[in-house]
Amino acid sequence: MTAYTATVTVRLKRGVLDPEAETTQQALERLGFELSDLRSADVFELDLDADSADEAGERAEEMTERLLANPTIHDYDVEVAQRE
Amino acid sequence: MTAYTATVTVRLKRGVLDPEAETTQQALERLGFELSDLRSADVFELDLDADSADEAGERAEEMTERLLANPTIHDYDVEVAQRE
Repeated sequence: MTAYTATVTVRLKRGVLDPEAETTQQALERLGFELSDLRSADVFELDLDADSADEAGERAEEMTERLLANPTIHDYDVEVAQRE
Repeated sequence: MTAYTATVTVRLKRGVLDPEAETTQQALERLGFELSDLRSADVFELDLDADSADEAGERAEEMTERLLANPTIHDYDVEVAQRE
């Protein structure tokens, strides 16, 4: 078994309203910053032991589909790296 | 002016309690998944126009220090990429 960290990024799908991001953008603009768009995403770093990077990625994907993301409104991607 | 996307990742500093991450980890364990740790982070993707990648990075850093992160409890990093 090797120690891996799977980094799962969960984003809202295009077209899904994100009032939190909109509010954050407006607040930055009120502070005098100029920006054309702001998107927010959630990242989960999962430390897990697995026999291979592929297995770690599959398990992380399963956890994402079961709990971390809502497939109706979210897209996600999973990156796996070996952990020291 | 060139279009850039600055990706800002805001994490809790080591030692700062993260009850949301803890609850998420427990929920995954109740679903039968094994994992040794789970950390969460917020990601902001800022679309902005600037004269150079360095300038875009500096402005993103300023926005992070002013609003997106709380330096007492958060660490952050900024990555800048040109946008098509």
